Amino acid sequence: MKLNIREFSTGSEGFLAELEALLAWDSVSDVAVQESVANIVTQVRKRGDEAVIEFTNRFDRREIKSATELEISREEMAQAKLRVSDELVASLEAAAQRVHDYHERQKQPSWQYQEADGTVLGQKVTPLDRVGVYVPGGKAAYPSSVLMNVMPAKVAGVGEIIMVVPTPDGVVNDIVLAAAYIAGVDRVFTIGGAQAVAALAYGTDTVPKVDKIVGPGNIFVATAKRMVFGAVGIDMIAGPSEILVVCDGKTDPDWIAMDLFSQAEHDEDAQSILITPDKAFIQDVKASMERLIEAQSRQAIIKVSLENRGAFIHVKDLDEAMEIANVVAAEHLELSIDEPEKWSEKIRHAGAIFMGRHTPEALGDYCAGPNHVLPTSGTARFSSPLGVYDFQKRSSLINCSPQGASDLAKIASPLARGESLEAHAMSAEYRILADVDASAVKASEAKGE
Amino acid sequence: MKLNIREFSTGSEGFLAELEALLAWDSVSDVAVQESVANIVTQVRKRGDEAVIEFTNRFDRREIKSATELEISREEMAQAKLRVSDELVASLEAAAQRVHDYHERQKQPSWQYQEADGTVLGQKVTPLDRVGVYVPGGKAAYPSSVLMNVMPAKVAGVGEIIMVVPTPDGVVNDIVLAAAYIAGVDRVFTIGGAQAVAALAYGTDTVPKVDKIVGPGNIFVATAKRMVFGAVGIDMIAGPSEILVVCDGKTDPDWIAMDLFSQAEHDEDAQSILITPDKAFIQDVKASMERLIEAQSRQAIIKVSLENRGAFIHVKDLDEAMEIANVVAAEHLELSIDEPEKWSEKIRHAGAIFMGRHTPEALGDYCAGPNHVLPTSGTARFSSPLGVYDFQKRSSLINCSPQGASDLAKIASPLARGESLEAHAMSAEYRILADVDASAVKASEAKGE
Repeated sequence: MKLNIREFSTGSEGFLAELEALLAWDSVSDVAVQESVANIVTQVRKRGDEAVIEFTNRFDRREIKSATELEISREEMAQAKLRVSDELVASLEAAAQRVHDYHERQKQPSWQYQEADGTVLGQKVTPLDRVGVYVPGGKAAYPSSVLMNVMPAKVAGVGEIIMVVPTPDGVVNDIVLAAAYIAGVDRVFTIGGAQAVAALAYGTDTVPKVDKIVGPGNIFVATAKRMVFGAVGIDMIAGPSEILVVCDGKTDPDWIAMDLFSQAEHDEDAQSILITPDKAFIQDVKASMERLIEAQSRQAIIKVSLENRGAFIHVKDLDEAMEIANVVAAEHLELSIDEPEKWSEKIRHAGAIFMGRHTPEALGDYCAGPNHVLPTSGTARFSSPLGVYDFQKRSSLINCSPQGASDLAKIASPLARGESLEAHAMSAEYRILADVDASAVKASEAKGE
Repeated sequence: MKLNIREFSTGSEGFLAELEALLAWDSVSDVAVQESVANIVTQVRKRGDEAVIEFTNRFDRREIKSATELEISREEMAQAKLRVSDELVASLEAAAQRVHDYHERQKQPSWQYQEADGTVLGQKVTPLDRVGVYVPGGKAAYPSSVLMNVMPAKVAGVGEIIMVVPTPDGVVNDIVLAAAYIAGVDRVFTIGGAQAVAALAYGTDTVPKVDKIVGPGNIFVATAKRMVFGAVGIDMIAGPSEILVVCDGKTDPDWIAMDLFSQAEHDEDAQSILITPDKAFIQDVKASMERLIEAQSRQAIIKVSLENRGAFIHVKDLDEAMEIANVVAAEHLELSIDEPEKWSEKIRHAGAIFMGRHTPEALGDYCAGPNHVLPTSGTARFSSPLGVYDFQKRSSLINCSPQGASDLAKIASPLARGESLEAHAMSAEYRILADVDASAVKASEAKGE
């Protein structure tokens, strides 16, 4: 099948503008969606379970009468697991273990230190009390996403994990429930959309209020998350998924073609880009793609995604490839080259770096260990993969010795007066020790700073 | 002066509902503000410097002709520092040093580990390239806020720090510029409001585009930050400042009164709450307040804040006080009690914990070392003080050995097929080593999972 994929060269005029246009992604906020979501959130906040049942029956074509019907127990999750093939359960368990082990390394301890005068400073790190995980239902129900969102929360020590997953027409996905069971989800409610987000954010008689909501969802879910942000924490709002493959031309072109497909098959907005200094290799990969696409079950999606948003970029050398990778700040960066560790040192911005010819993105998506929830659309410039740190928070610790307080007060007092905050100054000055330097307060007051 | 401050008791009926009403804070998003900000952001994004100059001349009553006039050089900052009193400069320098030293402990290193089969996993931690710090102008110009927002970025190793500060009528604040000089700000532009946020988020010919914008601001600034979020990172949107003081009744009531005032003087929405098991102590503190308020320069603000949002809460014992502190999840928690370290172990949620009778919040606001940018309005349940971690981001590292890739592919393949993502499965399967188990791919394909 012929594929019409854009080809660029860094040598050509206007390259950077063309690259920028290729990468551009503005998430449009539709007024109709905004209003609809605002109404759902308000209704759920006001009427609780009653509203949740109404919206669930309407949007998911269900016939719920009592909110208790919405919950799936741990026992039912265990039963769902029994209905999943042994091979798949083994894979889920192996993946969960590896994700757990990797995330263990992200745990941050509390720390403190004492100064010479006895003052103690530090930072206390604690897990969140309760977290909500949104899992999409229907065709985009991804058990791997359950593991990736739940495991870091478990490792962080979150007290209770509540999962919500819509079950349109009452159809539950056994693999998703098996993943929830394996990951250690405490409670599951079969609700979705903005109504699920609102229920988690404000709580109802049945659905407990959480402290943070994570997990992917459609535009209604994303809009609702933005709306409840502040009442609860949220994770990032993800854009379409993307991969940037840098290859020196020495990897089997079939491998590279399939790595690009694995991103393109997600959805029509997904983005797959290949960068190489080997111009002939672009044609090799293209030939592989045109041959391999025939056998792809998601052929139609792959074709649209590649033709709309994909690209081959020819560069002068690998140094230039790394520069462009930093401009793109890709969600997934594959370095299919020799000495990938050495080259990776030049990478400043990327969600995840897949190094070497034997590290396709797909392994990271499922089971290598690192999280597959990654910053998209260039946000790797300022944000990070989902991790244990997203489920911990910090409190500063300050315990001044009398001498320490007295010394600090003498620094704080002029600063507070410089900001015309006299109560701050006086609150500090009360702690200046009389026997050390009683004149300081008076002098400072007289000066009227 | 008589003060009419609410008194509660945990023993009384409906206590929790009353507490909830006291703490309630909904930041209203005014449609007029939204529209005005959306227009400013669009104009700046489209017309760059031209729009920035127009809005700056209009809102700050200035007569800028060329965008170059908007910049304040490091030399001018140094000159501003010379105009500030020696005492204040010494305090700024001492505070900057202490804040620097504390934040050094927050730096997170990159890490990686190797598995038995040679696969390497890890996390690379890098600083942001460029950060924008918003500093309010006019009456709320706080040099301490310059230090607290800039120092963690410096410690993180941020490449370039751009500060924006409006100068209404062209009046610059020497102390703010001195603080910027001391903290190591690279460039300063005298712009403010939504136009400054938009300029930082999208860049103009004069103002460089940044990766993240931090710092406090009025409703226009907060609305603009929410709007550009996604194009750049932002810090949290702060609500009014609050303090919760837990006292056993053995601290000088004048000290506690002044600690409560130091919060109340911020603005009329600020919240100061005292919790104590000693009923008589409430009257002692009240008497101190009614006496001390007479001398306060910000008397009017303090009175409104205390009468509208302040409270005295009488509890059964300190255990109950800690429970309530966890419900409040205060920005500032002062434990003015014996053995504060022991009691602090019961605290799960607080922005900063000030321990002991000699640790008033004011010392933390200026110079103890920890950051004074803290989660407000109960968001300490899920968020943290501003820190070095806000100016670093992480990239996952995955480097599979051929054997590791082969083993992982066998886990990934059934999972991908379980999600109907066949290109993912095939991309993984290409890495299964032929000599190890060539039949795995075929078997899996035949099974059509």
